[in-house]
Amino acid sequence: MGSDTMMKAARFHAAKDVRIDEIPIPKTKPGYVRIKPEYCGICGSDLHEYEDGPHIIPQPGTKHPLTGEGPPVVLGHEFSGVIDEIGTGVAGLKKGQRAAIQPIIFDEDCLNCGQGLPNCCAQFGFIGLSGGAGGMSEYACVPASAVKPLPDDFPLDIGALVEPLAVGWHAVAVSPYKDGDSVLVLGGGPIGLAVVFALCGKGCQNIIVSEVSRQRRTFAKEFGAHHVIDPSSQDAVSEVKKLTKGYGADVGFDAAGVQVAVDYAIKAVRARGTLVNIALWGAKRVALDMMDMLFGERKYQAVVTYTAGDFEAVIDAIATGKLQPKGMITKVLAVDQVDEGFKALVEDKDNQVKILVHVGKLREAAANGTM
Amino acid sequence: MGSDTMMKAARFHAAKDVRIDEIPIPKTKPGYVRIKPEYCGICGSDLHEYEDGPHIIPQPGTKHPLTGEGPPVVLGHEFSGVIDEIGTGVAGLKKGQRAAIQPIIFDEDCLNCGQGLPNCCAQFGFIGLSGGAGGMSEYACVPASAVKPLPDDFPLDIGALVEPLAVGWHAVAVSPYKDGDSVLVLGGGPIGLAVVFALCGKGCQNIIVSEVSRQRRTFAKEFGAHHVIDPSSQDAVSEVKKLTKGYGADVGFDAAGVQVAVDYAIKAVRARGTLVNIALWGAKRVALDMMDMLFGERKYQAVVTYTAGDFEAVIDAIATGKLQPKGMITKVLAVDQVDEGFKALVEDKDNQVKILVHVGKLREAAANGTM
Repeated sequence: MGSDTMMKAARFHAAKDVRIDEIPIPKTKPGYVRIKPEYCGICGSDLHEYEDGPHIIPQPGTKHPLTGEGPPVVLGHEFSGVIDEIGTGVAGLKKGQRAAIQPIIFDEDCLNCGQGLPNCCAQFGFIGLSGGAGGMSEYACVPASAVKPLPDDFPLDIGALVEPLAVGWHAVAVSPYKDGDSVLVLGGGPIGLAVVFALCGKGCQNIIVSEVSRQRRTFAKEFGAHHVIDPSSQDAVSEVKKLTKGYGADVGFDAAGVQVAVDYAIKAVRARGTLVNIALWGAKRVALDMMDMLFGERKYQAVVTYTAGDFEAVIDAIATGKLQPKGMITKVLAVDQVDEGFKALVEDKDNQVKILVHVGKLREAAANGTM
Repeated sequence: MGSDTMMKAARFHAAKDVRIDEIPIPKTKPGYVRIKPEYCGICGSDLHEYEDGPHIIPQPGTKHPLTGEGPPVVLGHEFSGVIDEIGTGVAGLKKGQRAAIQPIIFDEDCLNCGQGLPNCCAQFGFIGLSGGAGGMSEYACVPASAVKPLPDDFPLDIGALVEPLAVGWHAVAVSPYKDGDSVLVLGGGPIGLAVVFALCGKGCQNIIVSEVSRQRRTFAKEFGAHHVIDPSSQDAVSEVKKLTKGYGADVGFDAAGVQVAVDYAIKAVRARGTLVNIALWGAKRVALDMMDMLFGERKYQAVVTYTAGDFEAVIDAIATGKLQPKGMITKVLAVDQVDEGFKALVEDKDNQVKILVHVGKLREAAANGTM
């Protein structure tokens, strides 16, 4: 039987060491909202942490400056749930309401945050990585600004897709993409596919996805790509040029994060075109070929996560049927199978797009005393 | 005494081997205009060729695809002169008219050229580097499109500054710079200073130049920079932040081409800001720190030379007094002193901005039989 004060949560202790721990149910502080998470996706960055982290998660013995927490931290930043309790000073939300969580932790006094760019916060943190809260737990207390209400009939499994879709949406929204443009997307993983969804949502008529995995190319076509290229067996630059009347793509989106792909993408983008980087490179640098950059007057733009309006736009696009991302969910697991999820993302990578953890089941099992 | 068929010209044979050769006076082909060059600047890229070239100049035994010429080639691409003869099919120009030369050689059938981007031509070449013609000769035959008329009273020494100033003008024109922006310029050499001139011409109120040489910092202040920084003794990032209310510069211009400067410039540019690269890097790559790029959503943009309108804008800005670049000319030499010019650019680098070769004197000396 569940306790009134304790709950279960999946916590990262160290690489390959994620445990279901019993920890206190968080109290709802002023300005915060307590969520009962229902579904939570496993993200590529969770996998990086699992395989050889901590990377974004604070190093052992250190604490994130905003949360004051270090490992073990609760995992899970792609989650949906139901509002359980509302802290004092929070307006416009109600108990029982469905929500997707925008998991950015930021410092309101930071100059960039003051300009509407919490994703460029000097002390940037992430719910589910930086401590404070996480989606893979029975309860999560998050700042009210993180709570993005969903319509009452919005399926909560789809709600867990809003975060990765918002990453793609944001990238397209802040890129120079405009109607009529041809686009090259590097990588057909969840974020590359989120870019495809966003481009479809905006009516793009020429989406070219470059991806080495055959299964991921199939997903890309299914989700709206007009053309797919296998850069391991085809000359990606000349293929893109063939598909763009010889000019090259107007905009490229890098969701692969591989130097060799950057090299051909710069050449495959037209003169005055832009390659937009979404990939996380850790400590690695991207080495740009300056002859290709200069004699095409090309641009390279970095984008990260999302800003105000991106979650709302994705929720609206799903609610109105413009985006139909259900096919992204390739597996749903219970929280105590989270290890299995990480393994599937490595061993069965090509067949998986988004693996969700059904956190609600954990709460149910705890309440029933079956766990 | 001068010959009717032969002329003198400074030609690049190999690194450290520039000779005054006697070569045939070029014939004026249809669509071409024969110029009597008067002044010709020595450019940093000329110096690179002189020191350890050929780089842009075709390698020995090879020929540029558009000119069909390889070394020895006539030097000089920053030049002014007077129209001597007009080829058939050329309208709108007249003999005796003053002109600055826009030294791009391009292939009209190229897709980029068809889009108004001859600077992104697949077979891009340069008058004065790629063969065909050069400013350091008694006569130069150039395509009519290269001839940019000057007002009758436009001093021809200033006319030789139009090309480097157009590089700076173009960089600012295609950058995201807008009224009210703060700007960081890396490098106070001729191109960095050309950027300062262009920014002043556009009314920029906060120009910060980062330059290690004290004399060049003095030039930068003289020519309109509001602040100068010595990155070898100051923390450039915090200095720029101090001068921009903590945010960082809205736009940076890299006219230095040094990796360490790129590294601090990316940090010194505000969130969502752009670092514009004008520098030539040869075969070197620029390695971007992706943490700085991502968590500031920053942009890196490459620009090169000029496109339609840039020469005209610079000529107009000088003619109307908006740009007063005469102070850039720090030395004027005769053509047979061109070696001395290269040496001064190396040994007395900090005191030199623009060294001009007075080509008109060569023609005069040849006509008088004194050479």
